[in-house]
Amino acid sequence: MIKLGILGGGQLGRMLLQEAANYPVETWVMENDAECPAAHLCRHFVKGDIRDFDAVYAFGKQVDTLTIEIENVNIEALEKLEQEGTLIFPNTNALKIIKSKILQKEFYKQNEIPTAEFRIIQNRSELNRYQDFLPAVQKLSTGGYDGRGVVMLKRKEDLENGFDEPSILEKMITVQKEIALIVAISQQGEPAIFPPVEMVFDPVLNLLDYQLCPASLPENILWKAEAMALSVARNLKSPGLFAIELLVDSSGNVFVNETAPRVHNSGHHTIEAHYCSQFDMLLRIILDYPLGNTKAVLPSLMLNIVGENDENGDAVYEGLSQVLKIENAFVHLYGKKETRGGRKMGHVTVISIEKQDLLLQAKKIKTLLKVKGTQKV
Amino acid sequence: MIKLGILGGGQLGRMLLQEAANYPVETWVMENDAECPAAHLCRHFVKGDIRDFDAVYAFGKQVDTLTIEIENVNIEALEKLEQEGTLIFPNTNALKIIKSKILQKEFYKQNEIPTAEFRIIQNRSELNRYQDFLPAVQKLSTGGYDGRGVVMLKRKEDLENGFDEPSILEKMITVQKEIALIVAISQQGEPAIFPPVEMVFDPVLNLLDYQLCPASLPENILWKAEAMALSVARNLKSPGLFAIELLVDSSGNVFVNETAPRVHNSGHHTIEAHYCSQFDMLLRIILDYPLGNTKAVLPSLMLNIVGENDENGDAVYEGLSQVLKIENAFVHLYGKKETRGGRKMGHVTVISIEKQDLLLQAKKIKTLLKVKGTQKV
Repeated sequence: MIKLGILGGGQLGRMLLQEAANYPVETWVMENDAECPAAHLCRHFVKGDIRDFDAVYAFGKQVDTLTIEIENVNIEALEKLEQEGTLIFPNTNALKIIKSKILQKEFYKQNEIPTAEFRIIQNRSELNRYQDFLPAVQKLSTGGYDGRGVVMLKRKEDLENGFDEPSILEKMITVQKEIALIVAISQQGEPAIFPPVEMVFDPVLNLLDYQLCPASLPENILWKAEAMALSVARNLKSPGLFAIELLVDSSGNVFVNETAPRVHNSGHHTIEAHYCSQFDMLLRIILDYPLGNTKAVLPSLMLNIVGENDENGDAVYEGLSQVLKIENAFVHLYGKKETRGGRKMGHVTVISIEKQDLLLQAKKIKTLLKVKGTQKV
Repeated sequence: MIKLGILGGGQLGRMLLQEAANYPVETWVMENDAECPAAHLCRHFVKGDIRDFDAVYAFGKQVDTLTIEIENVNIEALEKLEQEGTLIFPNTNALKIIKSKILQKEFYKQNEIPTAEFRIIQNRSELNRYQDFLPAVQKLSTGGYDGRGVVMLKRKEDLENGFDEPSILEKMITVQKEIALIVAISQQGEPAIFPPVEMVFDPVLNLLDYQLCPASLPENILWKAEAMALSVARNLKSPGLFAIELLVDSSGNVFVNETAPRVHNSGHHTIEAHYCSQFDMLLRIILDYPLGNTKAVLPSLMLNIVGENDENGDAVYEGLSQVLKIENAFVHLYGKKETRGGRKMGHVTVISIEKQDLLLQAKKIKTLLKVKGTQKV
């Protein structure tokens, strides 16, 4: 039986393990927290720091193949393991490109994949030279996550809020629509593409409000987006699963925003709404099985369940019973004991042939379900 | 977080745990084999004999609530635990009735639920008195499983093959169709009923060939079957999930064959084909959440994957890759290391709006997929 190691033990690892139980594979997880969401669904749990060379190397030597559920891993250890024959999904070259926003932007440019115009910045004094480049968005090259490490610089007065670290400065795009596509690349280099999802953001919190699948797009934009996502995944020259976020501007131009080389929040709806889920697909790639069917059984909507602001301590799911009464909703809670403001605690997928029904149920769920904490701030 | 103990660690436990990862519940499993299918998907695994009073009692004292994935458990320990306040799904009274085929048949009779006419037999000398009752089927009162503990007695010469143990002798019914219905009963006594499935058996091996959902039945028989299944589940006076097997004869009479007080092989298709799966439903009952939606997203067919005869040792899944190419098939393998003739190693569910497509894919899967063993007999 193939021994599969997963670096990281969050909800993505948890859902991957739920699916892995359908296949003959021996699962291993490494994470620093022995009570993380993935700790109790694997065959072997190893407590260790995924950013530490020795820990990752030792873990990798115990398994046949490795994958990640977060990019923030020790890449030098992975390179050594790869040289010594461990299969890694994605390969370290792809991971390196994606881990650094600077390399990632250069990769898009080299491969003629449309992306927002950008400048590379090493520190604030360099940043100050780009007054004429505003309005722009500055993104830290490494370490950003879920909206952190990003700052909007609209006017030159904003420059003092900029980062004093290696980063990219991107021309601001007037986003009309944000979409995401997941592309699978088999060990033989064969691709499969999931239908695009459309992300709807809360304009105040800049947090995902909900996402719809399929995205409602004119055919010409859909085709452009699919071609670009395929181009990103193929040019990374690695088997694996890739989530490509794209921005559509008001003129119908499509730009790659960023890529994740792993299962992704934008693919959770595939668990119930598609023939093959993103988790099943990644396992098929790793186990060298045929790629699965990316088609939808029904259109879907996915909402993250996030901790309410100013609520800490043990999570309490207010309104859960009412949400569980919704006849076409599927609830996933991630087993995180403690909540905090904005923490992803779970998600709900709704499936329906009627878009209006999806939107109605989403509204109901958002109104009903609140993650509170036992300690008030 | 509620501590849920599961007695038994087979595939039913495994699939229950896959689903339990969506809810805030701390899972415990007890089974004698530390490499059983459910051993590595729970929070706490306890190695122990589920038929042993002390083992079950000690295990039960560590959790808040218990369920079973096999009836062959120590019921005296469960009775003591129940008296001391542990919630048990199903309750011990229901479990006792079902565990004994004698009590089960008497229960149907007392509650006026049609079932094949029967006699209670204690030993072979009693059996010999019932020559006039033949053709009949003799079933051991306890210990039968998956076709074992059952003998056909067509003529008086067959009586010498009968069991010399407590058993029931049932008048043979000319079965036109075998169906199964799963009924959920909430902690408040509220019922929910899944659509019936139709079992198609291999006439030679008396093993399930495949099952179809929904069963194709005239409305009057469907209504009769649903009423009977509901009557069985309600009269057991216990919250829990109940799988009720029914026989339809050539005159359209419906008889209860037997009942399982737990998740069941006949409900596996609900994982992908229904809004709420049987596993999700049992968890909702145990966690006192609202019952789920039993409706089908699409019609489905389910096939068990069983070990080929005369094949032992480490399991090898011949044809798995071809089956994984079928666009509307979902493969579940149970993580059993060793195969043997007739052993349930996994199942495949196919979903489609077209019955002909379901049957076609089933035929393909049966032809392609063979569980071989590394040691030949």
